[in-house]
Amino acid sequence: MRPKVGHIQFLNCLPLYYGLVKSYALLDIELIKGTPTELNNLLISGGLDISPISSIEYARHHESLVLFPDFTVSSDGEVKSILMLSRFPIEELSGKKVALTSTSATSHVLLKLILSRGYGVEPEYFICLPDLNRLFENADAALLIGDMALKYSVDAKDFYLYDLGMEWKKLTGKKMVYAVWAVNRRFAETRSELSEYVFDILKKSMVYSMEHLSEIAEYAAKWEPFSFFFLKEYFKSLRFDFGKDYQDGLLYFYRLATEIGELKTVPEPEFINFHSGVKT
Amino acid sequence: MRPKVGHIQFLNCLPLYYGLVKSYALLDIELIKGTPTELNNLLISGGLDISPISSIEYARHHESLVLFPDFTVSSDGEVKSILMLSRFPIEELSGKKVALTSTSATSHVLLKLILSRGYGVEPEYFICLPDLNRLFENADAALLIGDMALKYSVDAKDFYLYDLGMEWKKLTGKKMVYAVWAVNRRFAETRSELSEYVFDILKKSMVYSMEHLSEIAEYAAKWEPFSFFFLKEYFKSLRFDFGKDYQDGLLYFYRLATEIGELKTVPEPEFINFHSGVKT
Repeated sequence: MRPKVGHIQFLNCLPLYYGLVKSYALLDIELIKGTPTELNNLLISGGLDISPISSIEYARHHESLVLFPDFTVSSDGEVKSILMLSRFPIEELSGKKVALTSTSATSHVLLKLILSRGYGVEPEYFICLPDLNRLFENADAALLIGDMALKYSVDAKDFYLYDLGMEWKKLTGKKMVYAVWAVNRRFAETRSELSEYVFDILKKSMVYSMEHLSEIAEYAAKWEPFSFFFLKEYFKSLRFDFGKDYQDGLLYFYRLATEIGELKTVPEPEFINFHSGVKT
Repeated sequence: MRPKVGHIQFLNCLPLYYGLVKSYALLDIELIKGTPTELNNLLISGGLDISPISSIEYARHHESLVLFPDFTVSSDGEVKSILMLSRFPIEELSGKKVALTSTSATSHVLLKLILSRGYGVEPEYFICLPDLNRLFENADAALLIGDMALKYSVDAKDFYLYDLGMEWKKLTGKKMVYAVWAVNRRFAETRSELSEYVFDILKKSMVYSMEHLSEIAEYAAKWEPFSFFFLKEYFKSLRFDFGKDYQDGLLYFYRLATEIGELKTVPEPEFINFHSGVKT
């Protein structure tokens, strides 16, 4: 059976998808597309062998997962596609209703951290579907992610707009890791070679896509409601690194998450070892 | 939005998929994979713009669909992946229990026709999930389709085995069309150019795949539980035509289906017209 690999169906992962198509990788992996929440659930339940997973969900389920080195979905400051839209200035949100969209996980915790630690604000949170027409029926502010957020980053009339990557940088001075790539631990142990094979496929696709961002922006502009110029700038601003700075930002995020009760303990990131399957 | 195109996730459509990957088509269409039943339901409900659909389901919903010319999933005799497995010789199945797997549609009707018209046999039918371990708990015979059937076409111990393509040919002398490619009528009317674009993509992929069957068999043998030689023979025996003989076989199938009450009327196949969107 081909390995079952998750793929975030947002524009931020389109460059990676482009690389996968151009390398014919889709012949050798079963790519399953979804929102971050869908992929989180599939990876944790064993419906996927390998997938991007929300950083906070990796921490909550790290016993059954090991990490791929090198890849994350991250930002160093502005992220553009994780936003809070608000009818009120952020400082005035205490006691107000804030909607968290059901498609994301890390950004729920991130928003809570920013509001409580950055602004001393404690609103009332509730989770709902990412349907913009209904979102503000019952909410004073709403967390938006993905392509829907991206649209608002260009054109957010009637709302105060806060970029959560930028707010995190302001609060901590650190980089922010929204998602990591993880392997089901049993798959990593029993199918070590296949795990490495998928890693190589992803690595090659990532390198290819970084070298062809203009071409990808041109292609994407054919289908997406954004201009070539906007897409090119957006793709260039994305970060997929997992270097020391990013690991540092991730652990700091985990530490703060434990302090507000969103995480029990800070896990030690555990990377796959392609010879034995697991490396600590 | 990229057009949403269905794809049957069985080996018989793997050559087409191979052609789609090799032409980078997956950048410009949103390919949704599934069993025939899943794709039927999605196309009929508007969740897909274009898809292969079981022949019998096209007939039942032809008012809301138009056909692509040229493509079908057909056979001229043996089909290998649509089988009945039986504990008893086919002539002895009257009053016995026959399981119909929930993943298919055309072959339910085909099997009923073969049993009643070919053998004068009237068993008791029931529908169940395609789980081989449980299938024969309550059944004396079972319809199998797709890759599961293909495995049994090689190695069906303890069962009488009947190839439904061969049985149809024996009964009628005609070719059998199991599935056709259809376009949601509203999509065809409002997005005529995009429909033609998808047709061209499929056509090119189909031509490519027919020219590379050995290469595809070699690739498929890496991942599938079949040898290169078996796969090559299987791919060579597949038919995707929609010429006069196949249309004739399809209409004859519809006529017999009306006679046993599986279809109200025989529809006149209505092909897409790429200029106006619909051609009768």
